Amino acid sequence: MDDVVRLTLSELFDLSFRVLTVNGMAHDHARAIAKVIVAGQRDECQSHGIYRLIVCVNTLRKGKVVRDAKPVITDVSPALVRVDARFGYSQLAFEMGSKVLVEKARTVGIAALVINNCFHFSALWPEVERLASEGLAALAMTPSHSWVAPAGGTKPVFGTNPIAFAWPRSGGVPFVFDFATSAIARGDIELHRRSDKKIPPGWALDAEGQPTEDPAAAMKGAMLTFGGHKGSALAAMVELLAGPLIGDLTSADSKAFDEGANATPCHGELILAFNPALFTGPDRAEHDQRAEALFDGIVSQGARLPSQRRFDARLRSEANGAHVPRKLYDDVLALIPG
Amino acid sequence: MDDVVRLTLSELFDLSFRVLTVNGMAHDHARAIAKVIVAGQRDECQSHGIYRLIVCVNTLRKGKVVRDAKPVITDVSPALVRVDARFGYSQLAFEMGSKVLVEKARTVGIAALVINNCFHFSALWPEVERLASEGLAALAMTPSHSWVAPAGGTKPVFGTNPIAFAWPRSGGVPFVFDFATSAIARGDIELHRRSDKKIPPGWALDAEGQPTEDPAAAMKGAMLTFGGHKGSALAAMVELLAGPLIGDLTSADSKAFDEGANATPCHGELILAFNPALFTGPDRAEHDQRAEALFDGIVSQGARLPSQRRFDARLRSEANGAHVPRKLYDDVLALIPG
Repeated sequence: MDDVVRLTLSELFDLSFRVLTVNGMAHDHARAIAKVIVAGQRDECQSHGIYRLIVCVNTLRKGKVVRDAKPVITDVSPALVRVDARFGYSQLAFEMGSKVLVEKARTVGIAALVINNCFHFSALWPEVERLASEGLAALAMTPSHSWVAPAGGTKPVFGTNPIAFAWPRSGGVPFVFDFATSAIARGDIELHRRSDKKIPPGWALDAEGQPTEDPAAAMKGAMLTFGGHKGSALAAMVELLAGPLIGDLTSADSKAFDEGANATPCHGELILAFNPALFTGPDRAEHDQRAEALFDGIVSQGARLPSQRRFDARLRSEANGAHVPRKLYDDVLALIPG
Repeated sequence: MDDVVRLTLSELFDLSFRVLTVNGMAHDHARAIAKVIVAGQRDECQSHGIYRLIVCVNTLRKGKVVRDAKPVITDVSPALVRVDARFGYSQLAFEMGSKVLVEKARTVGIAALVINNCFHFSALWPEVERLASEGLAALAMTPSHSWVAPAGGTKPVFGTNPIAFAWPRSGGVPFVFDFATSAIARGDIELHRRSDKKIPPGWALDAEGQPTEDPAAAMKGAMLTFGGHKGSALAAMVELLAGPLIGDLTSADSKAFDEGANATPCHGELILAFNPALFTGPDRAEHDQRAEALFDGIVSQGARLPSQRRFDARLRSEANGAHVPRKLYDDVLALIPG
């Protein structure tokens, strides 16, 4: 028996939607979440594909997330829109808020979308890519749970605090990056623990604050940021901008809110959109070419643009369907009561 | 003879203003530049203190910079202001534009200041600190000259592309960071070359693309970014947002514009301002406390906040005057024709 199942993107969507709805998720939420899960599987981000259905259903069963939350939009100013997700998942709040964000950025050049009180499990690239597809540059950030020590420290303060950015390119896929400001994703340490492998130096400290290569000790200690004091400074910026600035929780607050349930983190998110048409002025085409020359300068010397692997996977999945490990597929099917 | 000269901040200002004006700088520019140079010396950033007077006067003598440029402000939208520095230094353009930026951020919550066609030599922290002193959070970035290779590459594409951020704190000095997305400042490699010292691994490649510890070979080759592919992604973001987005040069364009003169880079700058009062909503004090709890979580475990050393130096200089190495002081005095 083949150990991989191939599914078209529409089959993946139907499966995801069904798993979510039979487990009680409201249809509008299920639709928004399924889209993002399909995008992850399509791009071969296994940790953000249909594996997340298992995490979602677990979180639903724990009762922390509001399965039919009705996001409330507040039009704060010509440059600022707020969506209160009311303790539902983030995706529907983003879908609703991003439409307003796009209009604002088109009109005044720069605008911000604040999402409050959302459970957030997805990567940030689907969101910044969505905005790039509207011809906008976008920057997104969110805290998580406090697992990461500041540079020079040994105790967790920061979340893994991802930052994502997209730049629209007229020729095809946008320039996109999306990375944790921690040295590595928490899931990677967990994967090492499960397969009984050491973690590399520079990822984490143990509970006594000593460097460790033991993944179990790392999970009980503190992760480290990427890039030393600079990565640590960025992690702090994410806490401040996507936490207190927007009237929401820091990663430490979010961890406290979780009360040890180990559910998907609940906090806020900040998304900025930039409209080149207003920022650049009249010579848009000339400056677009400057950006393309930058990308050429990277690619022509054999270096890769971020997300290139993901875009290659996307082409394969769109042509031939996405592949799902059979074990994972079976686990997902088992979420549908017989 | 003492090898250090102590000057009050007002003596430093007068000296800087005089050196600039006797060398032909217009008074409004000289005033704006002298303020920033005094701030650098006060904070014991020797590379951004009165040493910069030598660089400024050299750049003036090369005739690249317009010594009496009149910045032109365009009010693009309720969230966007543009200042064309008209090939003068950046400081006066920032002073003029930041007043408009502050008003816009106060009114609509988030706003952007674009500075075009400026010669830029200063650190970015004076600018984000200026905005923090108005109760705003701020993020600034600028390209430089293409000296830095992308992750996975060997040829220079990016500038040292600094990012600076400030968060206003009601109790005293703001939370501030300001760092190059290159592994190290270019000046540090130059200092190693002058004192005939090796540079550490991870700073640079030679002209053949091989890792080098020879500072002279590094200057002819390519510097590296901090933090591997993540730092490289951020460097690209700075190029895009503070270059083509704002209708200005990338670091490669800026280097070409320099035509080998080795003058201060000429390009654009992007500064964003965030107004917590509008972003946070009604519970401003509660969320301010969340930010303070974050800082406490860092400091209480013995880790340092970024810029702490600079703020400590500031207190010393304000109390007892700033110290200037006598050799540097004499070199600066020599810029005043006898």
